[in-house]
Amino acid sequence: MKARVTIMLKDGVLDPQGEAIRHALGGLGHKGVAGVRQGKVIELDLDATDAAQAKTEVEKMCEGLLANTVIEKYSVEIV
Amino acid sequence: MKARVTIMLKDGVLDPQGEAIRHALGGLGHKGVAGVRQGKVIELDLDATDAAQAKTEVEKMCEGLLANTVIEKYSVEIV
Repeated sequence: MKARVTIMLKDGVLDPQGEAIRHALGGLGHKGVAGVRQGKVIELDLDATDAAQAKTEVEKMCEGLLANTVIEKYSVEIV
Repeated sequence: MKARVTIMLKDGVLDPQGEAIRHALGGLGHKGVAGVRQGKVIELDLDATDAAQAKTEVEKMCEGLLANTVIEKYSVEIV
């Protein structure tokens, strides 16, 4: 079973990396980009067979290691 | 209109960052993780109103700046 975790900075937390991308896109002639936020995506190959149980396990991984929940939010998707 | 770009290393390209995460998860007691791949997600706020046109524009951004198409694959999603 595969799980996909998407980790983004929380709204309101400054994202200088996203801002740098926006600036670079503007320089390359891509107007019309009002804002950019960058985050991480982590794809996990799991041995688990129960989707609900797998999701709970992956949420524990997020809380414990993958995300910094002070400034980041995460979403878990079983695919 | 919002677009979400997901950038992952191509299959077969070594992902040491993902491997480090897998190792760390094992150390924290999360057994049953067979593999981990890490990638980037970029959320763009676009002024465009036409979804098809926006997607084409974002694909150009990927080819030109966001992804290194030698080793990375990308997918664009209009949300």
